[in-house]
Amino acid sequence: MHCWVDGQDATAINLQNRGLAYGDGLFETIAVRGGRASLLDGHLARLALGCKRLAIDADLALVGDEIQRFACQLGDGVAKLILTRGDSQRGYAPAAGVAPRRILQGAPLPSYPAEHAEHGVRLFPCQTRLGEQPLLAGLKHLNRLEQVLARAEWQDGEHAEGLMRDGQGRVVEGVYSNLFMVSAGVLVTADLSRCGVAGVMRGALLEHAPGMGMPTQVRDIAFEELQQADEVFVCNSVYGVWPVRAVGALNWSPGPLTRKLQAVARTLLDT
Amino acid sequence: MHCWVDGQDATAINLQNRGLAYGDGLFETIAVRGGRASLLDGHLARLALGCKRLAIDADLALVGDEIQRFACQLGDGVAKLILTRGDSQRGYAPAAGVAPRRILQGAPLPSYPAEHAEHGVRLFPCQTRLGEQPLLAGLKHLNRLEQVLARAEWQDGEHAEGLMRDGQGRVVEGVYSNLFMVSAGVLVTADLSRCGVAGVMRGALLEHAPGMGMPTQVRDIAFEELQQADEVFVCNSVYGVWPVRAVGALNWSPGPLTRKLQAVARTLLDT
Repeated sequence: MHCWVDGQDATAINLQNRGLAYGDGLFETIAVRGGRASLLDGHLARLALGCKRLAIDADLALVGDEIQRFACQLGDGVAKLILTRGDSQRGYAPAAGVAPRRILQGAPLPSYPAEHAEHGVRLFPCQTRLGEQPLLAGLKHLNRLEQVLARAEWQDGEHAEGLMRDGQGRVVEGVYSNLFMVSAGVLVTADLSRCGVAGVMRGALLEHAPGMGMPTQVRDIAFEELQQADEVFVCNSVYGVWPVRAVGALNWSPGPLTRKLQAVARTLLDT
Repeated sequence: MHCWVDGQDATAINLQNRGLAYGDGLFETIAVRGGRASLLDGHLARLALGCKRLAIDADLALVGDEIQRFACQLGDGVAKLILTRGDSQRGYAPAAGVAPRRILQGAPLPSYPAEHAEHGVRLFPCQTRLGEQPLLAGLKHLNRLEQVLARAEWQDGEHAEGLMRDGQGRVVEGVYSNLFMVSAGVLVTADLSRCGVAGVMRGALLEHAPGMGMPTQVRDIAFEELQQADEVFVCNSVYGVWPVRAVGALNWSPGPLTRKLQAVARTLLDT
């Protein structure tokens, strides 16, 4: 698949890049269908928030244009954007006038089994807990060792995703998804102000749900509440929505609100 | 300065490298004088611990040999080793058989003002707090956004380093140093089992101090204790030991134990 660095074909990046040195940057994973980048506004909005919090002075209009041109060439696939602070000498303080670097990488659309969406998935209960860092919480930054460690906890094909909790055992998210539960008709997802990644699909579902008669709550979720939930699902901006049918010994069936939001996600992703 | 990737001259690294994608790797910053890598055993020991915790299957004997050959060519300078899990397709789970990649980058020895070592430095009291993640604490891994944010808090030349605290306000370390205080004749440094980087110079000083009649303690340090300390200093494996003369409104003078350990550090670094 093709890759660009700053809009030009490339296969490599300078060794001085701060993305490599310190994970000093952000990324977005964008579904592309028929040459169109799905949920692009949401991806760019999260990127803008990340740039603001990390004080990365990027031209986001240029980034948006570049993603669209890249998607055009990709056709169908996944476009991964990595935006780093740029190249700099050794040391945490970047050189004056450092220029952000844009990396775009194309990959095929993943071929998940259809039963993930139809009958739901089983989540591996990860032991790796998410640390709390309010300054970075919600961002899709390049410091992702917690996810690497969590994903390494299971190798079997039985688990399509893992459940990640915080240090207090609260339910936060999946390794590469956000998690929702339905409790007494209310759509609940974790508050991500201390840890977690605020997914673009999560944001879109929270936006659409109230208009469909589903009240939403963004708050802490105790593990015990998950046990009592009527429906549980995970979502991201590549696969959409997967019902969760099990976490360890807990079981659920795909429910009606999950199905409604699954349809919304399909529309948003043009599938 | 010259750079190697896997032992060969290089200026760039594959875009698929997981160091770039996720900060999935480790690094060491090694002082080199007269073609010799200082404190190499300590650097390799920390690297081994990091590889074990991150399950990176690297040939550390090869890494050690390569650092020595690189140091020979460098003469005098700083050799930075980045060891990543390797190149892999998109996704937190690495490809089967992924091979770790070794990156070596040379840089000149930094030219710090002599007064840093003679009269001491002023630490900027950083607002950025270190998050707690026991699985990564102590390691010099590539997820360093907290340090990037902390270092960006001051731009003036008055502060040679910053003081980093944890979420509870306890004193942990500098942005690129470890911190010690002397309290009633005891050398105290922070317990790094929840956050922080266990520096190689910190380890060497903890090892040498008892034989010089200085008892040591590795434990939590409340900020109030720092106020009461008789001596405070920071250390790392490039500059050695710098007395701390101020943190915000707090002041100290370089003390006798600091001077003794500064001499130890000089010997260890061959300066």
